[in-house]
Amino acid sequence: MSSTMSEKILARASGKDKVEAGDIIIANIDVAMTHDLTGPLAVESFEKIGADKVWDSSKIVIPFDHQVPADSIDSANNHIIMRNFVKKQNIENFYDINAGVCHQILPELGHVVPGDVIVGADSHTCTHGALGAFSTGIGSTDMAMVFAEGNLWFKVPETNRFEITGTLKDNVYAKDVILNIIGQVGADGSTYKACEFAGQTVSDMSVSDRMVLCNMAIEMGGKTGLVEPDKKTIEYVEKRSNKPYKIFKTDLNASSLNIIDIDVNNLEPQVACPNNVDNVKPVSEVDQEIDQVFLGSCTNGRISDLRDAAKILKGKQIAKETRMLVIPASKEVYSKALDEGLIRIFVDAGALVSAPCCGPCLGGHTGIIGPGEVSLSTSNRNFKGRQGSPDGKVYLSSAAVAAASAIEGRIVAPE
Amino acid sequence: MSSTMSEKILARASGKDKVEAGDIIIANIDVAMTHDLTGPLAVESFEKIGADKVWDSSKIVIPFDHQVPADSIDSANNHIIMRNFVKKQNIENFYDINAGVCHQILPELGHVVPGDVIVGADSHTCTHGALGAFSTGIGSTDMAMVFAEGNLWFKVPETNRFEITGTLKDNVYAKDVILNIIGQVGADGSTYKACEFAGQTVSDMSVSDRMVLCNMAIEMGGKTGLVEPDKKTIEYVEKRSNKPYKIFKTDLNASSLNIIDIDVNNLEPQVACPNNVDNVKPVSEVDQEIDQVFLGSCTNGRISDLRDAAKILKGKQIAKETRMLVIPASKEVYSKALDEGLIRIFVDAGALVSAPCCGPCLGGHTGIIGPGEVSLSTSNRNFKGRQGSPDGKVYLSSAAVAAASAIEGRIVAPE
Repeated sequence: MSSTMSEKILARASGKDKVEAGDIIIANIDVAMTHDLTGPLAVESFEKIGADKVWDSSKIVIPFDHQVPADSIDSANNHIIMRNFVKKQNIENFYDINAGVCHQILPELGHVVPGDVIVGADSHTCTHGALGAFSTGIGSTDMAMVFAEGNLWFKVPETNRFEITGTLKDNVYAKDVILNIIGQVGADGSTYKACEFAGQTVSDMSVSDRMVLCNMAIEMGGKTGLVEPDKKTIEYVEKRSNKPYKIFKTDLNASSLNIIDIDVNNLEPQVACPNNVDNVKPVSEVDQEIDQVFLGSCTNGRISDLRDAAKILKGKQIAKETRMLVIPASKEVYSKALDEGLIRIFVDAGALVSAPCCGPCLGGHTGIIGPGEVSLSTSNRNFKGRQGSPDGKVYLSSAAVAAASAIEGRIVAPE
Repeated sequence: MSSTMSEKILARASGKDKVEAGDIIIANIDVAMTHDLTGPLAVESFEKIGADKVWDSSKIVIPFDHQVPADSIDSANNHIIMRNFVKKQNIENFYDINAGVCHQILPELGHVVPGDVIVGADSHTCTHGALGAFSTGIGSTDMAMVFAEGNLWFKVPETNRFEITGTLKDNVYAKDVILNIIGQVGADGSTYKACEFAGQTVSDMSVSDRMVLCNMAIEMGGKTGLVEPDKKTIEYVEKRSNKPYKIFKTDLNASSLNIIDIDVNNLEPQVACPNNVDNVKPVSEVDQEIDQVFLGSCTNGRISDLRDAAKILKGKQIAKETRMLVIPASKEVYSKALDEGLIRIFVDAGALVSAPCCGPCLGGHTGIIGPGEVSLSTSNRNFKGRQGSPDGKVYLSSAAVAAASAIEGRIVAPE
């Protein structure tokens, strides 16, 4: 009885011996996450359906990250709604304005373990599959039902398994790999598929790099991103969590499995050009001045990204007519960057360092671009208007390309 | 021919031997400042009057501080308008989103020297009088005329000279002194007066402390705040500026001079209560829980303020239900705080440290409060709605009171 990781996790969570792609199942939820932007709608729906108490106050995680510190009375109101909900429902895992981006702090603070079924009222919840969980974004009204019942229906997805082989060149990173894959398969190239990332290249990657791959699974339409747990996963998880976990792996003869081979041996630094995430080109083919560089987000705001960028920025100055925002993805990342002298390097180079939050990624507040402006961003989306004006443009890249480009004031590959 | 400092500076700037309070004069402007919020209106008016070139591109200073990084497409647009103006007019002194609060960076970067006449399209331009300049806030349309002509009409003000004597107790600061004075004379207690701060207590103060006094002159209706230059002033200025300067002092028998004696020997830490800056009480008489603490602004975001707060916060934790924002007033302050380990202390205590900007002071974006919320702020204004919701409340205090209160979650004096 061969199955994929996703099928095995969803079978466990739905109390069945086996489920198959296409089955509609009801799975028990291990972790339900909602943040300051999607939370108020979930709370409103929760109250509308007449629910009184949440199913399990220890399994709900509520971080504030999208509009922190509050940028408007509306945002402040959203925060108040959520703080009141947290108090009323005794939510144990609440992180106010100073913790960081939800998809970074959930794994970092031990809420994610292999084998979990995790839902989050945010598209990039697929990030957590990097630790071998089945983790996916849902809407706020679905979240209300999860809050009430602790379970949710799923159609079991088929799996696209990207078998990635080859050695990454210097200055080529997980972000370049995932941009390249999305460029190849297209923004709808894995619609409703579980996207597994496997192969020697992924084995060689850190947990942080694997999060980059899984984070962007949704950008090719994926239901989730997944990496099979290994020693690195276990080490990461056991340092951060005392939750029980269970490791599932894909049987390579599973009938719902589609294997896609990816060779990264000659991969160059990549950039996703406006206005689609699958409009991907090698950096060498792009000739573009930039107004703003954003280093951060749930895609590339981790300590390894900050280190990569700092190595390039050390002793250099950001171009005169370019501004750079550095926003560590969490308090832990910020704190490490402080210890390692990275904040010093960014400030000396002329970058603006802000407190952990989503920053300009979603066009919320910190670093909105105006008409005609061009942003180079380490985040995950570049559709029209994503970071502010619909007449602005957003390019996506790795932290290294972002840093090198900030110095030149135009999109360039690191040397 | 006895005169006040203000009369002497305005006489010099208008090319006269002597001017007297009540005279209408045209003064040449030494420095004209406008920021990202008031600048676009000034530029619009400048274009409307058909002006082509600014009178002197070396005397205009344009810092971005109120809405940085851009929090909306409107803000981003304002920034673009100002960047284009800077380029078109070859403005030499332009500070983009990462420099700090205008009233901190003007003196810090050497734009303010004794004897100058300085106008700024911002109420708290009176801050710069701490260095012996005549410095005052003007409207954006007046600023357009200054840009075009390099001069402006003034009615020469009378002077209220606050002769401050006594030794400040531990944990009592310049902020407590100025709050106490404003509480005594009222928010209209010095309307259109030049407010001089003199006496042994002021002589004993640092330049930074004197800026705190002058910053809030406008809060009692003052046309400007002033401190006579002394050794400390000269040392501060010569380290930062190579502009020529001229020292003017007040003749104590000047006919337009009104002396007000202030004894601070027994002064306790003060707090301005909602919703007026002159609703001042000793902290010991206030019983109030707080939701948010803001340490920063042109009033109290300098390195000395951060040191005072860090001394109290070191090894402590901010109260669970209180959030604290620390926003250094400039890049230099941020950088020093980084070097001195103060950022580390704030982060460890649970505070959110943001990049230099005006922060929640003006209710712009970073840290807006919602209905029913209470803010304790080291800034200078607490009228209804100043930091967000009109149903929120703002208290004003020193950095030390802010830090001690953040730990307790309620307004308290430092021990």
